[in-house]
Amino acid sequence: MKRLAILGSTGSIGVQALDVVARTPGRFEVVGLAAGRNAERLVEQARLFRPAVVALADPAAARRARELLGRDGPEVLEGDAGVAQVASLAEIDLALAAISGGAGLRSTAAAIEAGKAVGLANKESMVLAGELLVARAAKKGAPILPVDSEHSAIFQSLAGHNHAEVRRLLLTASGGPLRQVAAKDLDAVTPAQALKHPNWSMGAKVTIDSATLMNKGLEVIEARWLFDIDPRRIDILVHPESIVHSMVEYIDGSVVAQLGVSDMRGPISYALAYPERLRLDLPPLDLSRLGRLTFEPPDPARFPAFTLAYRALEMGGSAPAALSGADEAAVAAFLAGRCSFSHIARVCEEVLDAHVPERIGSVEHALEASEWGRREAERRVR
Amino acid sequence: MKRLAILGSTGSIGVQALDVVARTPGRFEVVGLAAGRNAERLVEQARLFRPAVVALADPAAARRARELLGRDGPEVLEGDAGVAQVASLAEIDLALAAISGGAGLRSTAAAIEAGKAVGLANKESMVLAGELLVARAAKKGAPILPVDSEHSAIFQSLAGHNHAEVRRLLLTASGGPLRQVAAKDLDAVTPAQALKHPNWSMGAKVTIDSATLMNKGLEVIEARWLFDIDPRRIDILVHPESIVHSMVEYIDGSVVAQLGVSDMRGPISYALAYPERLRLDLPPLDLSRLGRLTFEPPDPARFPAFTLAYRALEMGGSAPAALSGADEAAVAAFLAGRCSFSHIARVCEEVLDAHVPERIGSVEHALEASEWGRREAERRVR
Repeated sequence: MKRLAILGSTGSIGVQALDVVARTPGRFEVVGLAAGRNAERLVEQARLFRPAVVALADPAAARRARELLGRDGPEVLEGDAGVAQVASLAEIDLALAAISGGAGLRSTAAAIEAGKAVGLANKESMVLAGELLVARAAKKGAPILPVDSEHSAIFQSLAGHNHAEVRRLLLTASGGPLRQVAAKDLDAVTPAQALKHPNWSMGAKVTIDSATLMNKGLEVIEARWLFDIDPRRIDILVHPESIVHSMVEYIDGSVVAQLGVSDMRGPISYALAYPERLRLDLPPLDLSRLGRLTFEPPDPARFPAFTLAYRALEMGGSAPAALSGADEAAVAAFLAGRCSFSHIARVCEEVLDAHVPERIGSVEHALEASEWGRREAERRVR
Repeated sequence: MKRLAILGSTGSIGVQALDVVARTPGRFEVVGLAAGRNAERLVEQARLFRPAVVALADPAAARRARELLGRDGPEVLEGDAGVAQVASLAEIDLALAAISGGAGLRSTAAAIEAGKAVGLANKESMVLAGELLVARAAKKGAPILPVDSEHSAIFQSLAGHNHAEVRRLLLTASGGPLRQVAAKDLDAVTPAQALKHPNWSMGAKVTIDSATLMNKGLEVIEARWLFDIDPRRIDILVHPESIVHSMVEYIDGSVVAQLGVSDMRGPISYALAYPERLRLDLPPLDLSRLGRLTFEPPDPARFPAFTLAYRALEMGGSAPAALSGADEAAVAAFLAGRCSFSHIARVCEEVLDAHVPERIGSVEHALEASEWGRREAERRVR
């Protein structure tokens, strides 16, 4: 039995992770659950999976959970400190870092500092503080197992091969819901249109990031740190069917790829059970029924956001954190109808223009840089 | 420097292997070369690569080579025994088994008995005597490294993963030059039409086998032994672009695939340099330029030959050898205009119908079973 803490258990990845646990009885024990403010759902999960400890970042939600669970329920912690405590419980083997956004960073760091294996679904951990966290994880012997489908694919395509013989990583991108929208029509795109992801069911922020291709840019940053590779050797390839989850090209021209249906339970289960695989009884990939897989280059003219990620990596230090913060604010503004779709990338670019990168020395420092980016973007949206 | 013997050096695979050697100076030393009867080309290769020993299966060709090479040239051996001697030279690290057809079996076996690593391009070795040779190779500690692009792809897609977690092998097939020919028109197909392979430049026998899909059937047999897998877990998928060279599906639904341009120097170099990869400066795979990859199920109604391979494996023992012999004779008859395209599979089926399988106890026995199949097919063609 592998003992788990699921951080962000009430979110999209967390719920699917618990589904994986439920489908594979006897494989996992859920020792800890943590969420932000959704007390009702967390309580429901706690009743089903019987963890020893739960945490809610929001103190009011924690109080509500305590009432609902009663005295026979698990211990209920609260605040960021409570969530970090669940991430580093002595009893767990692996923490699934599935809190979305910059809010996930502290608990990822806590799990790493405790030397736990981390299933990493929170890409901001790598975007904001990748260099720092990867170094700490190496020092603490805490393996970081990617959960993003692209990074899981790269991880699986690197297994058994020589890292020094990698020529390029090829990150695939669905192209998002606006792939075929003409440049002149992008400004008129509504949040509802941008939220219609063709293949993946995900949270709102990441779905908008898919539409702008910022998501792919953030994944480039994540890959840069997870796989210790020069960003100039990471390419993006638009692949609307989202079947080839990503690829690795080696120096002899051979390309190893990982494919699968668009179901996050695949990569989630791979990280949870690593180095084993689980029989999940998901519908198998049927390529002859699909008929075709298509590929095209990304279009930086219509979707410039991904190019900003490369620029931020080149700037170095705190620039990716600032970009991430700026994007969180710009996407929130777009979803609230306060800026247009095209403004998201423009605002992010302006924030990068204004940023003076510093070396990231701590998680707090990374969060400050991201917060600076958020404020700068907010100011520009207003 | 890895020291090589190239068996079948004047054939398609042999010539490309020597091109790989020429492109990577300092990596390989060619110690031995062996061919069938093409003395002129072998002599030319010997002058360029300066092996210590060469062999020609045909004694008259060997005499001619001795004359051409003179007293300062390498030792020139002759006959099947001479070729087998090159395969098992004490000085070599790896023998590339690239003699085509049943003729390649003895030298593959000789290399294995000598405990050499074998780069296996001769699929008949596995089809005729796979069970026997794989057992001998395990006993002798002689690694068998596949050179067929499909098996190389599977080998690369298995690396680093757990063999016990394999659900299916997916062998891709181009579908050959007649993929889109209607059933009613297949009988009128000429050798010239069937020899026009869309993607690969190969010998005549294997190109016709591609057109009938018998080649894919023989590859199923090869995969069955190379990867020790139940044939019911080997599927064929038609993929006309020949970019995805083959795939492995794992129990969690994850599919790992190897892709590349259609250039045999890729898989050849992988086997020669294993476990390293070589920088070959071949044109890289450009998926966004290709645009699309397509897939369809194989059609057993028009191309029944591949189904015979599954049947032969189920019959067991000498049945695959008999099928292989029958196919060699039937393809030769088709190329000579002595039978129609559709007859190739029909003749092979009749030979299997008539076959009573026996356990294969030796290479000679395997060759006899194949010879029986050839004679039976010949008789039926007449």
